[in-house]
Amino acid sequence: MRKLRMGMVGGGTGSFIGDVHRKAAAIDGLIELVCGAFSSSAERSVQSGRALFLPENRCYGSFEEMIRAEKELPVGERMDFIAITTPNHMHFAPAKMALQNGFHVVCDKPMTLTIAEAGELISIVEETGLLFALTHNYTAHPMVRQAKAMVAHGDLGKIRKIQVQYLQGWLATSVESTDNKQAAWRTDPSKSGIGGALGDIGTHAENLTEFITGLKISELAADLGRFGEGRVLDDDGNILLRMDNGAKGTMSFSQIAAGEENNLAIRVYGEKGSLEWQQENPNQLITRWLDQPKKIFTPNGNGLYPEAATLSRIPAGHPEGYLEAFATVYRSFAQHLTAVLEGTTLQNTGYPSVYDGLRGLQFISAAVHSDSNNAAWTKLP
Amino acid sequence: MRKLRMGMVGGGTGSFIGDVHRKAAAIDGLIELVCGAFSSSAERSVQSGRALFLPENRCYGSFEEMIRAEKELPVGERMDFIAITTPNHMHFAPAKMALQNGFHVVCDKPMTLTIAEAGELISIVEETGLLFALTHNYTAHPMVRQAKAMVAHGDLGKIRKIQVQYLQGWLATSVESTDNKQAAWRTDPSKSGIGGALGDIGTHAENLTEFITGLKISELAADLGRFGEGRVLDDDGNILLRMDNGAKGTMSFSQIAAGEENNLAIRVYGEKGSLEWQQENPNQLITRWLDQPKKIFTPNGNGLYPEAATLSRIPAGHPEGYLEAFATVYRSFAQHLTAVLEGTTLQNTGYPSVYDGLRGLQFISAAVHSDSNNAAWTKLP
Amino acid sequence: MRKLRMGMVGGGTGSFIGDVHRKAAAIDGLIELVCGAFSSSAERSVQSGRALFLPENRCYGSFEEMIRAEKELPVGERMDFIAITTPNHMHFAPAKMALQNGFHVVCDKPMTLTIAEAGELISIVEETGLLFALTHNYTAHPMVRQAKAMVAHGDLGKIRKIQVQYLQGWLATSVESTDNKQAAWRTDPSKSGIGGALGDIGTHAENLTEFITGLKISELAADLGRFGEGRVLDDDGNILLRMDNGAKGTMSFSQIAAGEENNLAIRVYGEKGSLEWQQENPNQLITRWLDQPKKIFTPNGNGLYPEAATLSRIPAGHPEGYLEAFATVYRSFAQHLTAVLEGTTLQNTGYPSVYDGLRGLQFISAAVHSDSNNAAWTKLP
Amino acid sequence: MRKLRMGMVGGGTGSFIGDVHRKAAAIDGLIELVCGAFSSSAERSVQSGRALFLPENRCYGSFEEMIRAEKELPVGERMDFIAITTPNHMHFAPAKMALQNGFHVVCDKPMTLTIAEAGELISIVEETGLLFALTHNYTAHPMVRQAKAMVAHGDLGKIRKIQVQYLQGWLATSVESTDNKQAAWRTDPSKSGIGGALGDIGTHAENLTEFITGLKISELAADLGRFGEGRVLDDDGNILLRMDNGAKGTMSFSQIAAGEENNLAIRVYGEKGSLEWQQENPNQLITRWLDQPKKIFTPNGNGLYPEAATLSRIPAGHPEGYLEAFATVYRSFAQHLTAVLEGTTLQNTGYPSVYDGLRGLQFISAAVHSDSNNAAWTKLP
Repeated sequence: MRKLRMGMVGGGTGSFIGDVHRKAAAIDGLIELVCGAFSSSAERSVQSGRALFLPENRCYGSFEEMIRAEKELPVGERMDFIAITTPNHMHFAPAKMALQNGFHVVCDKPMTLTIAEAGELISIVEETGLLFALTHNYTAHPMVRQAKAMVAHGDLGKIRKIQVQYLQGWLATSVESTDNKQAAWRTDPSKSGIGGALGDIGTHAENLTEFITGLKISELAADLGRFGEGRVLDDDGNILLRMDNGAKGTMSFSQIAAGEENNLAIRVYGEKGSLEWQQENPNQLITRWLDQPKKIFTPNGNGLYPEAATLSRIPAGHPEGYLEAFATVYRSFAQHLTAVLEGTTLQNTGYPSVYDGLRGLQFISAAVHSDSNNAAWTKLP
Repeated sequence: MRKLRMGMVGGGTGSFIGDVHRKAAAIDGLIELVCGAFSSSAERSVQSGRALFLPENRCYGSFEEMIRAEKELPVGERMDFIAITTPNHMHFAPAKMALQNGFHVVCDKPMTLTIAEAGELISIVEETGLLFALTHNYTAHPMVRQAKAMVAHGDLGKIRKIQVQYLQGWLATSVESTDNKQAAWRTDPSKSGIGGALGDIGTHAENLTEFITGLKISELAADLGRFGEGRVLDDDGNILLRMDNGAKGTMSFSQIAAGEENNLAIRVYGEKGSLEWQQENPNQLITRWLDQPKKIFTPNGNGLYPEAATLSRIPAGHPEGYLEAFATVYRSFAQHLTAVLEGTTLQNTGYPSVYDGLRGLQFISAAVHSDSNNAAWTKLP
Repeated sequence: MRKLRMGMVGGGTGSFIGDVHRKAAAIDGLIELVCGAFSSSAERSVQSGRALFLPENRCYGSFEEMIRAEKELPVGERMDFIAITTPNHMHFAPAKMALQNGFHVVCDKPMTLTIAEAGELISIVEETGLLFALTHNYTAHPMVRQAKAMVAHGDLGKIRKIQVQYLQGWLATSVESTDNKQAAWRTDPSKSGIGGALGDIGTHAENLTEFITGLKISELAADLGRFGEGRVLDDDGNILLRMDNGAKGTMSFSQIAAGEENNLAIRVYGEKGSLEWQQENPNQLITRWLDQPKKIFTPNGNGLYPEAATLSRIPAGHPEGYLEAFATVYRSFAQHLTAVLEGTTLQNTGYPSVYDGLRGLQFISAAVHSDSNNAAWTKLP
Repeated sequence: MRKLRMGMVGGGTGSFIGDVHRKAAAIDGLIELVCGAFSSSAERSVQSGRALFLPENRCYGSFEEMIRAEKELPVGERMDFIAITTPNHMHFAPAKMALQNGFHVVCDKPMTLTIAEAGELISIVEETGLLFALTHNYTAHPMVRQAKAMVAHGDLGKIRKIQVQYLQGWLATSVESTDNKQAAWRTDPSKSGIGGALGDIGTHAENLTEFITGLKISELAADLGRFGEGRVLDDDGNILLRMDNGAKGTMSFSQIAAGEENNLAIRVYGEKGSLEWQQENPNQLITRWLDQPKKIFTPNGNGLYPEAATLSRIPAGHPEGYLEAFATVYRSFAQHLTAVLEGTTLQNTGYPSVYDGLRGLQFISAAVHSDSNNAAWTKLP
């Protein structure tokens, strides 16, 4: 086999998430970056590409140009898939066009701006049979996989209660009025969609909750906040959750939680025990029990389920972090794609899919609807 | 001066909270136990009293008998105040009768079963000028006082967001059907009132929130759970909070959170920084800031406000816990009462009052009302 | 039965450890303070006693006077035991005189200034059959008892390695030249003995190590430091340990570890697992295993040995701290003494004894000898 | 510019540290693997290379073959440097030959088996002017750099006390007698040298200590243990340290500390404050102060020195771990080498050097000498 060839949309010099995608794709040596539409300016795209040691003729001024040009290249040379790392409003169009032209897709979240767009992508994925990975990276931490496995194996008993939160503080002041690009597009509905913090980080909380518990949110009551001066979109939210098995819970997310860095955390309580995971300290899974002492699991440590034990790259006690989990999404995607290219029949190896993308949009929609109705209970499909 | 003389209602052999009150009252050497109505059986009351080295003639079979008999004793001998440590439904009557007969009162929480009873106690306290302390013990931790002082001094800026929780797991199974007395009365509406976990621990969360922030809950939306087989009262709850300054938040409490011991915790976010306190690790106050590294305060440690620095009994690094905070309520009450007896004019020295008791009842009432209406927003007075 | 009657030596107003002894003796309601020689000045002794609500005639100007006077009182009135809370050089004389006059003794550590004095006390205790408790309070934490029980039951396998430390920072600057009484006597060899930090806190580390492991230090190599300007006594030390079963280890203690509060901690490694306990966070015992995930035990929590489970005063999750452990020493002593007074034959209920006192002196002596010989290996008896 | 071309010695399929080197070199997109002598068997080398997508003709059966063959390739094609990831006894020869043939070197630690070999490498490096990086990866964590910067800027005052430890438990049982390759060579003096755990992890502790404090160990007293059945080399050690400024300390390392994963940790105490860093939780630097509350620094967080702030790849709160720090060594080396190739005059950008390698050997030698003399004080150069 060979390394898979990646083309990138977005991620020019100075980008946060584009750089994350590149490093995550590079770690395991399974993928090489071969081209990119790094910027809507051809000139800046070339500049960015040059810093990445790409030849000038594969640095494009738009995703359309890239997709068309790459399609013309010989099979042994052209990109295999695109990685979409642009702001939210620029996910749908390149994803759709890539799929329609035979390229597999890795896409950042939230997947699209609307449920309709999400539905359209699902249709195309199902029709074409092409692979689509959504980078809900947090689900790829070994300890999150251990959490999911413990729930699935019934270790905790029936789930009754959930607490999930995603707290950041970087929008506590009006940084969007400075030259902070990250803040500018995230607070702009035309680029972010109808959700602010809700779409940016609330969807991670939602995805993590349903991933670990295997349950679905059946209805929610959302009270969103807009604390930053002049903000149209939410920058904070508190949500009551009811799950499809009768469990109840709370979700809290914020980008105005002053002093918080990236405090995603979840607790899940079952009839027999409970678990707790914190993103800022991702290499432990705390579990509590009705009749045993607290037990703390670690990556590559003792007592793990295979679903978790096989994910680590290094021995126990050697911390892995954000990039490694992100890389695990890429590695799973690469393994799947390699199998497809080799004609073998490996199933999805664990990466989030286009259906997770739709679910995120449904969640955003329900929460915005609930909030508009003074936190009235609103059902999810 | 002399030690203050305490008479106890409830707290017979095997009691949890009665024993806590006794130890808390004893630590600082300011109070001596002189009599008690430890049980509704005169015989068992005497047995309990004997184990406490009390003379038989001051072990009473009812609070009525105790109050009447003690009143007949010479001033230099009779009890100064009563400590009420019975289940919820037995708070109001002894408190009322004690006050009406000239005895000061320390009372466990929730203060009464109903708002009407709470109002009646307030009237009597205001009329008689007698002292009344409610043992919301968690507010007496040095780091909780530091938290309150930091908010009051504006260190965090205007408060925007609150997360408070109180999680226990001891009712995860139906222990009330075994011979667990603590569980039996707490799950029985005739003894607990209209709130289960809500009254037992939710009120602590409510009190701690308003104590630290200096804000009032203006309205709430409560979704209560009854997970234990056959339970009439709530054993779990999730609540959206709106505060009177526009801040928003969540409260979550539970007695079916399997594996949790006594996990009361609060986070308060302001415009400039935030703080976090956890009861199970009470000797640190974690603070986070927009522009400074995380700072962790400790009892008797560096950088404290006087309100916190003066509370510790021992040097920094020597942990104090649950009993010491409880004892601080008693110490404050004793200092106030001593001043009163000496004719000096010391103000309330920081212990929770009859007004905190009313507030707790209003909170319980609003939450039950909201829950009965599918978590509809419900205003507090 | 009745409360035991305590007479106190030292512990006048403003004292640290005297106040600790009083609170520790008071918590459980088994002991009452009846008299004291709180100061070498009769006048100040009376002042201190008055603040403790004692009658003037039982506030003495010296321990000699107290012992003589109390002995003249009727059996039903006079003190049962004395609690010695003076600086180190004032332990031996009152302990000896009390024992010789029929009074039991609770004594702070280190027990005496010299090994000879320690031996003399042992002789008198053995001759008189009177009770003697040494307040090595840290051994009374429930989680320390759980640690000891786990080692004794062989859970960890044969012990191979020990790390113990006791780090404080309060002597980082020359506070003894200010009016800090605590610092003044601790840095004065005539009052502290031949060990500075070694005697004050090193002995706690030594005692904790031998208590938990059930092993004896067979030899040590000590490198002591005198960092404070003009200090004669050590204020810091690093020691290599060899235990009598072949285990090896390190001990580190300091009172110039700037920023540390009271960081006593120990780790013990056996062939099958290991444990870790930290005094500043005393309510957890961390255990690590060859083939299981980390397990964390908590007071009154799941999975404890009876030796630990029976020590807690309050339910799991309600933190106990320094005073409670100190109080457990007093409670054990009181239970033993009560049994003796009632003529029953209860054994020592777990409090440290006169033999622990001798062991501490042997440790101090060996460490000072080793340090004087450039950290040469020095055997302990 | 272009990506740098790396040739690898060792690191065949199943290797731990070889894989780490590859991932670390790959993350930042500055280096590509172009060839390797992955095994002493040509066949297995090709197999390993194929799995890494290398052409067969650049998978060599020995480092000698690789160096000779690559030297024959055109400048625009041949490797720029070699990465040596073999067991200790196979470091010196490839390093020497690479340097003598004009190739730069990245080498794992300990650098060589003997001080003489280390001296020889220094001579060649100095003569050739070629670059040499030693992968003491732990020094590249942002919080370790912050620690070093704080000491260098005098924030802690003069350093007085050091505690450093490196505890693992994976050799607690005799795994070398199973088919554990990692254990087999590490316990074999012909491959490991005269130090066992001492060389493998003790050198990391030594390097970290001198790196952070800027001090040199002037003398040490080492008590090494050989607990595993039949072990010739140490698997445990306890060391007293004296630093060249008068500071004292302890070092403890072990590979038989049952239950420990990779517990490298250091505490440094100065006259004004102290700091603590733990490898297993690398994204915080705990600092304690004489007159301020504890402060905790985080990567990319508030209050960092530029030396630390510039190292992070992702925003605050997004944990980086072992691989990222390892990658930072490679990144620094790549930046330096790129500058050299471009003819600019960038200095060493922070990676450990051949002099660190010599220092490690001196440390091993002194510790073994001390241990052989019953822990006699032994000076380092």
